[in-house]
Amino acid sequence: MTKQIGRYAWAIAEGYIPPASTGTTRELISHETVCILNAGDEDARIEIMVYFADREPVGPYKFTCGARRTLHLRFNDFTDPAPVPKGTDFSSVITSSVPVIAQHTRLDTRQPALALMSTMAFPLD
Amino acid sequence: MTKQIGRYAWAIAEGYIPPASTGTTRELISHETVCILNAGDEDARIEIMVYFADREPVGPYKFTCGARRTLHLRFNDFTDPAPVPKGTDFSSVITSSVPVIAQHTRLDTRQPALALMSTMAFPLD
Amino acid sequence: MTKQIGRYAWAIAEGYIPPASTGTTRELISHETVCILNAGDEDARIEIMVYFADREPVGPYKFTCGARRTLHLRFNDFTDPAPVPKGTDFSSVITSSVPVIAQHTRLDTRQPALALMSTMAFPLD
Amino acid sequence: MTKQIGRYAWAIAEGYIPPASTGTTRELISHETVCILNAGDEDARIEIMVYFADREPVGPYKFTCGARRTLHLRFNDFTDPAPVPKGTDFSSVITSSVPVIAQHTRLDTRQPALALMSTMAFPLD
Repeated sequence: MTKQIGRYAWAIAEGYIPPASTGTTRELISHETVCILNAGDEDARIEIMVYFADREPVGPYKFTCGARRTLHLRFNDFTDPAPVPKGTDFSSVITSSVPVIAQHTRLDTRQPALALMSTMAFPLD
Repeated sequence: MTKQIGRYAWAIAEGYIPPASTGTTRELISHETVCILNAGDEDARIEIMVYFADREPVGPYKFTCGARRTLHLRFNDFTDPAPVPKGTDFSSVITSSVPVIAQHTRLDTRQPALALMSTMAFPLD
Repeated sequence: MTKQIGRYAWAIAEGYIPPASTGTTRELISHETVCILNAGDEDARIEIMVYFADREPVGPYKFTCGARRTLHLRFNDFTDPAPVPKGTDFSSVITSSVPVIAQHTRLDTRQPALALMSTMAFPLD
Repeated sequence: MTKQIGRYAWAIAEGYIPPASTGTTRELISHETVCILNAGDEDARIEIMVYFADREPVGPYKFTCGARRTLHLRFNDFTDPAPVPKGTDFSSVITSSVPVIAQHTRLDTRQPALALMSTMAFPLD
């Protein structure tokens, strides 16, 4: 169970941070998420590139997912090298120094009842 | 990160444009979407065929997704060779001149609280 | 685009027909769906087995998806050899005489705002 | 149809039990689920490890999915070796003694209209 499992690279073609929220807590503010599982015994150095419709990609955004840990990242929180704009179409590619699993989830509370969607990212290697 | 990644062909078995909306802005009108990521350095010529329950397929609908760009396409917006009817079951096959990633998303606001769903398209090659 | 694409067998581990609806039209009654795309030039003979938590599987349910057609099937509508009970956990396995694509979708209107979920079925061959 | 189908190991990178519910029945209390299909003729011994953001993984949680049966498991119900905390990010890895299919679903009723999401788990072998 502590073997390195998963893949070194993943893609998510969807990407959109809803620009409004009816929720006011961090949990219920609209957010776009990539969840990463590193089930192995070595820390994962994660790099994420963000692609847009009308300009050059931005990144890499850099993170560490510890050994035997999960990291649920919100694109809303990305700051370096630049925030990800709200209300804008994007895509992302996630690469890792060790095999991981990546899954994409959105919570949308623009209207007064939350909506959810989720799908595994697409493995690239 | 700028290598050609993904596949040349994808299928989406679900397809349905909800025929009504409680939202009035473009963002909150019910829509059926295919999101495409072209992470490579060459433009992607995209062709989409749409399949129906009771008549011959329609298409190809033609698009270009630039190098290092994403293209979030709404079936609602398709016009040439013919609009995709609302409230009608369909499926689609996406082919590309270079490898891309494709993901399917629906936003449904027929009732006064939006619903979302998303899944990677199925890679065919 | 008219080649036989996809797989001969698919599995959906989730299965549940919500036992109530706030919607009253066929479109807005809670339903559990498998969408099939047959992009090839030969009709697909489809067989679906339904698995339960506490009794033997039921089926096969038999359908035909024409050449170059899509078939969006509701488990709610299954009758032969037996209806699929509402409010009951199940799973399904879809087999086809020719390669097809299968995708799982649920629309749930038990509470007064619809919810949606969708995922590609899992290819078995 | 009674052959052993599927895989021996699956991963779900997302994991979160919503800490509140507007629904009051078991069906409408917010829940995080993994659905397992064992279409084969031999019982499946299932083990699930749960991974967290900031501490060592917990498990294995042990279950049996009978031959030709489905098992829809709620992380909410896990007790041994320890409950899965609500409102906390986690991931999971599912292993089985025989091939099975695994799918991830969440029902969220924190706001007064349920939300759903679902995706196939990621096959590891």
